[in-house]
Amino acid sequence: MLKTILEPNPDNFTGDDADFMADFAMLCTFGATANGGVDRLAASAADGQQRTWFTQLLTGHGFTVEFDRIGNQFGTYELVPGAPYVLVGSHLDSQPTAGRYDGAYGVLAAAHAAFRVVAAYKNSGRLPKYNIAVVNWFNEEGSRFKPSMMGSAVYTNKLELDQTLSTQDRDGVTVAEALTAIGCLGAGAGPKAACCAEIHIEQGRSMERGGITIGIVDSNWAANKYEFIVNGEQAHTGSTVIADRKDALLGASMLVVAARELADSFPGVLHTSVGQLDVYPNSPVVVPSRVTLLLDLRSADEDVLAQADLQLHGHIEKIERLANVTIVKEDSHCWPVTPYQPAGVELAEKAAANLGLPHQRVKTLAGHDSTNMKDIVPTVMLFVPSVDGISHNEHEYTRDEDIVSGVHMLTDVVGRLAEGELN
Amino acid sequence: MLKTILEPNPDNFTGDDADFMADFAMLCTFGATANGGVDRLAASAADGQQRTWFTQLLTGHGFTVEFDRIGNQFGTYELVPGAPYVLVGSHLDSQPTAGRYDGAYGVLAAAHAAFRVVAAYKNSGRLPKYNIAVVNWFNEEGSRFKPSMMGSAVYTNKLELDQTLSTQDRDGVTVAEALTAIGCLGAGAGPKAACCAEIHIEQGRSMERGGITIGIVDSNWAANKYEFIVNGEQAHTGSTVIADRKDALLGASMLVVAARELADSFPGVLHTSVGQLDVYPNSPVVVPSRVTLLLDLRSADEDVLAQADLQLHGHIEKIERLANVTIVKEDSHCWPVTPYQPAGVELAEKAAANLGLPHQRVKTLAGHDSTNMKDIVPTVMLFVPSVDGISHNEHEYTRDEDIVSGVHMLTDVVGRLAEGELN
Repeated sequence: MLKTILEPNPDNFTGDDADFMADFAMLCTFGATANGGVDRLAASAADGQQRTWFTQLLTGHGFTVEFDRIGNQFGTYELVPGAPYVLVGSHLDSQPTAGRYDGAYGVLAAAHAAFRVVAAYKNSGRLPKYNIAVVNWFNEEGSRFKPSMMGSAVYTNKLELDQTLSTQDRDGVTVAEALTAIGCLGAGAGPKAACCAEIHIEQGRSMERGGITIGIVDSNWAANKYEFIVNGEQAHTGSTVIADRKDALLGASMLVVAARELADSFPGVLHTSVGQLDVYPNSPVVVPSRVTLLLDLRSADEDVLAQADLQLHGHIEKIERLANVTIVKEDSHCWPVTPYQPAGVELAEKAAANLGLPHQRVKTLAGHDSTNMKDIVPTVMLFVPSVDGISHNEHEYTRDEDIVSGVHMLTDVVGRLAEGELN
Repeated sequence: MLKTILEPNPDNFTGDDADFMADFAMLCTFGATANGGVDRLAASAADGQQRTWFTQLLTGHGFTVEFDRIGNQFGTYELVPGAPYVLVGSHLDSQPTAGRYDGAYGVLAAAHAAFRVVAAYKNSGRLPKYNIAVVNWFNEEGSRFKPSMMGSAVYTNKLELDQTLSTQDRDGVTVAEALTAIGCLGAGAGPKAACCAEIHIEQGRSMERGGITIGIVDSNWAANKYEFIVNGEQAHTGSTVIADRKDALLGASMLVVAARELADSFPGVLHTSVGQLDVYPNSPVVVPSRVTLLLDLRSADEDVLAQADLQLHGHIEKIERLANVTIVKEDSHCWPVTPYQPAGVELAEKAAANLGLPHQRVKTLAGHDSTNMKDIVPTVMLFVPSVDGISHNEHEYTRDEDIVSGVHMLTDVVGRLAEGELN
């Protein structure tokens, strides 16, 4: 059953924690949906509104705000002239009818951690090794513009800038046009990172089940993501005899079912899905001639993934025969299991122990901007628990005490990174 | 294999037949696609263009053109003041990337049959019992606006006018707005019909296989058409464990596969299909929470249809359990096997025999405007063969000699109807 969403309640907290909760309550109002979620697709009007508010929050704390050439929003605070930055953040964009916590919590936690670390240095008069920068990465979700993790991919040179700026949404609006419309397209490359940290909700239920407050991510699951096009032939749904049909939707449906059967045959260690599927001509009385779909296979075990992938391709050949269609792999995006730097994991374990927070090592099944960042600088990735593991859903929820503990944890980690503990 | 489309060639014909072929070649240019088909959704710009051209064709032959309150286009010729009309026609609108013949052939054949019958009366000085009206029914295809056969359904009082005029397409444009935009929304109810005739391509391959030039439709297949909504729950495609998922697209895909399995279990006597399927939120990394789909079952045998329907509903219960979803029947539109008037069938058999055209009785698997009309007036429905049975496809084709023979046949039938042979 779905939970009733509890409103973030600043009254249960004091001082900086109450400030954080009040800001989070405010953040939840941008693009708010009737069912307690948010709808803030990348570079939508709601995304523009929350970015404007976030700029005010950062500048109000003495940070300098800039947008880079792909719309990443940075708030920098230079304590040590010319030094590179601890880059801490996540993303404010959301899926359609999504939850309040995914990404947004990580950005606001980053801002408050940065405020606290900067304030501590200013109070003490000491100087860190690195400066502090908060980041709101552009289009992590990949719902309006593909691929996901777009802003961090451009920042880390995994995506080419011009091609990314000309990527279109379904209405033909380009990334450049959409960012310009909300006043968030800059020209620079953003601050130079020395290291990176991100906190995020788990989006699964392992931590909640284990009574864990802080997850310390030591690696990500491997994934094979495919765009398939199933090609059939238009025909009349009434008059064309069944034997003559080349029904692209039948072939696509068999593929969706086969993907789930694969997951069932590797229980618990393989996740499969088809999230997006488009039918042409999608008319009531026409046998569909073309279906495009996105199919993912994910596993923490690369051998399992390889076996499943082989079986999937066997299914495809069978489906081509059974449904009298052809299936073309139009695009693919695959990544292996990659570790986060062990020194970063150990640093985070030290911080959690220091704060007395229940913690354990976890793997991330979802992709995150930190997955890109860890390939160029030492990166710490943290999780807080998700109630019932619900995510990409308006009923996504993390308890107030957990999001506040997460800010404490992130503050400690950012402080250690600023000191250069990872070098 | 798909055929290369042969262009209609007036040079192989003389006199009125050459005129018909030239007009048909012209008609094929409206909304023409690169692959030899047409794309003329109801009340689209291309539909507006062909309607304007058709008005000119009709008025050029002395007919009076009017649009009724649902955009049906009538060309009337009053030979007997005050008498009701033989209403002959079909529809000019098409599916997306459709063929040239579906509907359009029937409208143009009707016009030329009417021209010939009127000319014969004027030459002879005799008067018929009924006047002659050509009709281009609005939105037979139901692709842009649901339901299909909209214009004839309003004409026959099966659909309520105001509700139909406010029906929206996917972009929120209403029927009234779309018809106004192409200048085809009138105020009247159209001419009063005494009887009706329609000619159409078969859209199947039974006549071609049997060497038959003229099919005389004696009844339509029964159909159960359902709109189902599959409800699941949004979740993360990566991090949500499989057991927790309520994947609406998985449930919908199982339903598509089940529909085909039903057809396979009643070989040749049951046609099933899902032509339209929409996924929400349709984002790459979100487990879909809602899928809407249109599923049809059709049979000439009402017992088969009833058995299949029962089995379908059994499948639905099973799918709800297997995919952890709920499936709601949002809408349904069912019709039984209904005969065309036997006297009309016999009249057409007499006409075909008279012309020496190979003919046989056939059933229509597809719905037609005549299916509506036969419920209010005596109606004759004729088919010409479809090469390879291809339809709702740019490669739809009927041989020139067959479409010309169809015009001869329709002319003879319209003449007999005008004489009152069915009364």
